[in-house]
Amino acid sequence: MIIDCHGHYTTAPAGHDKFREQQIKGLDDPAVMARLVLPKISDDEIRESLENAQLKLQRARGTDLTIFSPRASAMAHHIGNEETSLTWSRLCNDLIARVCALYPENFVGVCQLPQSPGVPPAHSAAELERCVKELGFIGCNLNPDPSGGHWTAPPLIDKSWYPLYEKMVELDVPAMVHVSSSCNPCFHATGAHYINADTTAFMQFIQGDLFKDFPSLRIVIPHGGGAVPYHWGRYRGLADMLKRPPLIEHVMQNVFFDTCVYHQPGIDLLLKVIPIENILFGSEMVGAVRGIDPETGHYFDDTKRYIEASALSAAEKRRIFAGNAMRVYPRLAAKLGAGA
Amino acid sequence: MIIDCHGHYTTAPAGHDKFREQQIKGLDDPAVMARLVLPKISDDEIRESLENAQLKLQRARGTDLTIFSPRASAMAHHIGNEETSLTWSRLCNDLIARVCALYPENFVGVCQLPQSPGVPPAHSAAELERCVKELGFIGCNLNPDPSGGHWTAPPLIDKSWYPLYEKMVELDVPAMVHVSSSCNPCFHATGAHYINADTTAFMQFIQGDLFKDFPSLRIVIPHGGGAVPYHWGRYRGLADMLKRPPLIEHVMQNVFFDTCVYHQPGIDLLLKVIPIENILFGSEMVGAVRGIDPETGHYFDDTKRYIEASALSAAEKRRIFAGNAMRVYPRLAAKLGAGA
Repeated sequence: MIIDCHGHYTTAPAGHDKFREQQIKGLDDPAVMARLVLPKISDDEIRESLENAQLKLQRARGTDLTIFSPRASAMAHHIGNEETSLTWSRLCNDLIARVCALYPENFVGVCQLPQSPGVPPAHSAAELERCVKELGFIGCNLNPDPSGGHWTAPPLIDKSWYPLYEKMVELDVPAMVHVSSSCNPCFHATGAHYINADTTAFMQFIQGDLFKDFPSLRIVIPHGGGAVPYHWGRYRGLADMLKRPPLIEHVMQNVFFDTCVYHQPGIDLLLKVIPIENILFGSEMVGAVRGIDPETGHYFDDTKRYIEASALSAAEKRRIFAGNAMRVYPRLAAKLGAGA
Repeated sequence: MIIDCHGHYTTAPAGHDKFREQQIKGLDDPAVMARLVLPKISDDEIRESLENAQLKLQRARGTDLTIFSPRASAMAHHIGNEETSLTWSRLCNDLIARVCALYPENFVGVCQLPQSPGVPPAHSAAELERCVKELGFIGCNLNPDPSGGHWTAPPLIDKSWYPLYEKMVELDVPAMVHVSSSCNPCFHATGAHYINADTTAFMQFIQGDLFKDFPSLRIVIPHGGGAVPYHWGRYRGLADMLKRPPLIEHVMQNVFFDTCVYHQPGIDLLLKVIPIENILFGSEMVGAVRGIDPETGHYFDDTKRYIEASALSAAEKRRIFAGNAMRVYPRLAAKLGAGA
């Protein structure tokens, strides 16, 4: 079985995006806001949006199940206020739930949180609980920078995040640290902001003692851990300079990297320096990079090929493709166990 | 010959740091500002500050010449105003010039620019010219984020940077893109801000057409290019999605990475995916990571060992150790030619 831990609904039906467009317009125009109604999206529209995209690619590439969340770049927590974010997040999460209901073999849900700049993360706990308990979701995406590239929120080790972590622990669900679009012209979203956020989060975890306070908290850092595996020596050295325990004890009992690294040498490095038990298969498809690599003739984001072509043993590959995800997402393991 | 393209004067005599301390105090206290005088630092103090640090390590590791600049984390362009930054930058640069005069075989200067948030980069051109023409410097450090972690300056492809690039081209000197300390608690300076800035700058170059406008502009991105080599497939794919030419044509005629990557697998990746002609030997010593790697028994930042242990040919190693630096820093080549 092959579980892709990182897929976004980047192909949602037009009505969904249209609602968001009107919602944003409504922030400046009360007449538009007054006419705003939730979109009507048919099951057929949902099927169509997936059949020629994620489902086609799952079949073509031979992956089985995608841990599926709303489009990350469209979370845009910086737009509007807490209410804007809550309305949009609920709508996005409900749509994911419909996808999962239509294709229970192919998708399992992870939610977007209704974060908003300056709003305590504690306010996101209720939507997380709703998604897990009512919609059957198995995790959440946590945005370390709801300001969209201005980095005005406290670091992830700050106590203000703790109520959300408490809820995650209570529900036994992990978070993927994932920023959204950037409204700072310095940062290209998928080329700089995403990767920077991954690197930043890891360094914050080194600086703090978060996992002493939450020994069972689990965090997935996407995009292969940002710059971290490439600079693994730097991070080991910095942990030492900051008088922290070795990374394996201090961070890597709780932090996991996905395999969204779009070339063989990058994946080979990841597999070499990061313990196998900390790596989860992910592709981010359909996502950041949609083209075909002229050097290989295959999609850049067909990361399964890189894992398969690596020097790992069959048992190690199985852990990356499925075993580790079962451990990090126990609600997925329970679902699959129940379904088996 | 082995040229280290990335060394900072992190061990400057106490009087130098004391001046800075008083200068910062003076921003809030006119009485302190009124008493502020330039520090008196003897040649012996300078010798002592280097003999047990950079010079000792040069000898121990077998490197010859360090391209040497003021301590990057202390540039702190975000403190005070344009005048604060100019006074401090001139002082730092003058101190580097004294180091280079005392040890002309061991050090060659690169300057700090008197950048300040909101101040046009054009205002830094005069200090660059002074350092090159009067002090014999061969390049500069360019801070893409003078705000210190708030990223309020325009991207490096913005026209506001052009007057500074024009001066660089006129003087035939490259810039190393190098941020300073972070006053944003999200970003650890050497663990997040530095690496993020490297990644961010590279992505900005992909987005723009800077090197069409300045075909002879040369930029060094330190710390092994941030996250870029690890995500080389992502950047090739993004260039394609953004309808830019292939990276080799679009960016890599003008952009170079140093080897400040503190473990063998990271260096091996760098050497594998980035063309050899784009890689300059650098160690950042004495710098970000000062300890000994318990896995190897050697200093993390003894990057010469990693290059030597790599699979490159002797000719390729020579290019990384010296040949490429001569090409990127023609004023260094001229100096060494004259000295030979």
